[in-house]
Amino acid sequence: MLVAGTVVADSTTVVDDGAVVTEDDRIVFVGDREAALERYPDHERRTVDIVAPGLVGAHVHSVQSLGRGIADDEPLLEWLFDHVLPMEAAMDAEATRTAALLGYLECLESGVTTVVDHLSVHHAEEAFEAAGEIGIRGLLGKVLMDRDSPDGLVEATETGLAESERLIREYHGAFDDRVRYAVTPRFAVTCSEACLRGARELADSYDGVRIHTHASENRDEIATVEERRGMRNIAWLDEVGLTGPDVTLAHCVWTDDEERELLAETGTCVTHCPSSNMKLASGVAPVVDYLDRGITVALGNDGPPCNNTLDPFTELRQAALLQKVDTIDATALSARTAFEMATVNGARAAGFDRLGALREGWRADLVGLSTDAARATPVHDTLSHLVYAAHGDDVTLTMVDGRVVYDDGHTTVDAERIKHTAASLAEQFVE
Amino acid sequence: MLVAGTVVADSTTVVDDGAVVTEDDRIVFVGDREAALERYPDHERRTVDIVAPGLVGAHVHSVQSLGRGIADDEPLLEWLFDHVLPMEAAMDAEATRTAALLGYLECLESGVTTVVDHLSVHHAEEAFEAAGEIGIRGLLGKVLMDRDSPDGLVEATETGLAESERLIREYHGAFDDRVRYAVTPRFAVTCSEACLRGARELADSYDGVRIHTHASENRDEIATVEERRGMRNIAWLDEVGLTGPDVTLAHCVWTDDEERELLAETGTCVTHCPSSNMKLASGVAPVVDYLDRGITVALGNDGPPCNNTLDPFTELRQAALLQKVDTIDATALSARTAFEMATVNGARAAGFDRLGALREGWRADLVGLSTDAARATPVHDTLSHLVYAAHGDDVTLTMVDGRVVYDDGHTTVDAERIKHTAASLAEQFVE
Repeated sequence: MLVAGTVVADSTTVVDDGAVVTEDDRIVFVGDREAALERYPDHERRTVDIVAPGLVGAHVHSVQSLGRGIADDEPLLEWLFDHVLPMEAAMDAEATRTAALLGYLECLESGVTTVVDHLSVHHAEEAFEAAGEIGIRGLLGKVLMDRDSPDGLVEATETGLAESERLIREYHGAFDDRVRYAVTPRFAVTCSEACLRGARELADSYDGVRIHTHASENRDEIATVEERRGMRNIAWLDEVGLTGPDVTLAHCVWTDDEERELLAETGTCVTHCPSSNMKLASGVAPVVDYLDRGITVALGNDGPPCNNTLDPFTELRQAALLQKVDTIDATALSARTAFEMATVNGARAAGFDRLGALREGWRADLVGLSTDAARATPVHDTLSHLVYAAHGDDVTLTMVDGRVVYDDGHTTVDAERIKHTAASLAEQFVE
Repeated sequence: MLVAGTVVADSTTVVDDGAVVTEDDRIVFVGDREAALERYPDHERRTVDIVAPGLVGAHVHSVQSLGRGIADDEPLLEWLFDHVLPMEAAMDAEATRTAALLGYLECLESGVTTVVDHLSVHHAEEAFEAAGEIGIRGLLGKVLMDRDSPDGLVEATETGLAESERLIREYHGAFDDRVRYAVTPRFAVTCSEACLRGARELADSYDGVRIHTHASENRDEIATVEERRGMRNIAWLDEVGLTGPDVTLAHCVWTDDEERELLAETGTCVTHCPSSNMKLASGVAPVVDYLDRGITVALGNDGPPCNNTLDPFTELRQAALLQKVDTIDATALSARTAFEMATVNGARAAGFDRLGALREGWRADLVGLSTDAARATPVHDTLSHLVYAAHGDDVTLTMVDGRVVYDDGHTTVDAERIKHTAASLAEQFVE
């Protein structure tokens, strides 16, 4: 396919009147439109206003989609234990499949082509199947919780690890390697030492399997770990093997200097979730400092109960704005940096190479956007427009692995049926 | 017209399967759809998913629309003196008219029916005419700057006040009283004492004329005033008469306890602009404290160079999220409170009575929204959905004073021509 428009190839390369050409699952050309038309005269053609790399949602909870808005304006502990976890515990296979499809649908509609997805304890295979069906790229993992967890979610250590291994064998590299596995302990508080060490061992046993967990999102969490383990949370995760370039830690709001050094030295990836951290009043992650230290920081929307959307453009903007006001420096976290977080850094957090920029030979994951809205006039700088003024609603075309999975309202699945089923299941499972 | 849908009449009243009926410029019915259909069988009918009051953008700069994105990631002083003010100084009548039309178009497209609009020093009549033409409700004012201002904008005190008076006579109450006047000094730093006192005198001479200015947005500003006047900025504004229920102060980020008491005692309205305060790294306004003191706090997007959009739903969400993270309290500034800020409080800041809620006998300003996007499934609480998940893009119908001014992409003006002209003028005037 030949997609023409202003091409934002990466955070520093914009081609006006450009084009991207894909063949199968690869990009074969990025450059001038005229040259593309001459060289690929027979390719199917599409014209959009802006062509950009597909965005990476590097920490989401697709299976929480049925709980969008269920506990707005509530404190974290009530939010989690009275609403979100009971909902997860109550969900059956159909609800899990529907929630995942709804979450992925929202992603594809709004420009996310890759997710790092924290599933639930049960029915994780439903989300893998949903990702396969709808066509999104993802690093997915069933949740491990073997202590201090509510009934219906707590699971014996060996059971959880064995089920994870079963899922790795079934789904890691599935759907033409579009879907991969991350061993996914919920967080240090709800996981025993055996569980965390087991997660590392399991990840090491399979090539390309990563680790994804929450870390240091709020102060109660780090106090609990410190009391229990006699050390800070990131130090504890390091102790049990949960740091390194194959590890993605969501949040990292509350870290001290030593922990930050540890994250940098070990090459651990961090996913920043600014809207979630604001809505749950967790705090402001020291993103500028992390980036200064060379830490890979990606972006994520977290789950619909705490965001309440999976629109990646909301987080691009929010990441830049929140660092500026927090550091009292309007130059902090520029549009360019935010864009890198949501693209190349996200690709690293998701563990896919040749992803996150439009380059010849790279994976054919891209989005096309419209500039019809009045808020898209004028566009002085296309990259800056994407960060500060664009919305997911502007997305008119989404391609993953060379396949068009969203095209001006049309998807590979029956979106109306998914939304209808989701709305009726939500009433049932949220009580 | 009979508009059917889930009616969010105000922050505490939601009617499922409801309807709002308007006749001329007034709401005549709010209630059940069935009852409405029976009572008004011959009214033109429209069905939307959600019907809500039109939102109030209680501090905007429509004439800065040509400068959307011109100085992203730049510090405040460079932003203002190297980019925004030179652009305002260079703009001619056509550019001002086009910028205002573009700004109002964006407002109507995204659900703002009333603006409190800080214009520029020159060509202010163009914005009044634009508001008249496009059909938006507004409190508009030409800017006064008589000291410490760049060439091309600085104006003799008497000239500015005389021109303001001419505009009051011509436009205050114009277009069936849809457009009113606010005497609009830029801020204390660029206005002499005579200018500020003259603004109060002028406002007092005409019934219903208000005062609109910036106040205590950043620390350099309050330090300058303190050095020059020997008192805090709000105290100085009070001293020269610029407090009171007919005054709307934008920002109020940096105020001390005495100033807050002064704002409360005098009934002065404050407009909070969270995205602008974040992007320019101004700081976080103490909104929760203001509301606790009984101060009327409205919401505004500020100008396209510092936001970069006029989407009111962005600010509803941002106001709630920013207070939560700033106070480390997830219950702070609930969806309900944010909604009141953008509706009834905004109406007060704009000086229009019977505005900001859907009630019988009130002004017929409303918006209709779609819930087609995946991010609108499920909707557990319609009001919360409007604050946390809705976008201006969801707006399909906008009515002001009983007249449909935006209808699924169609407006009262030639939107394509406005955007085209704006894009080409932007290139010319931004240099």
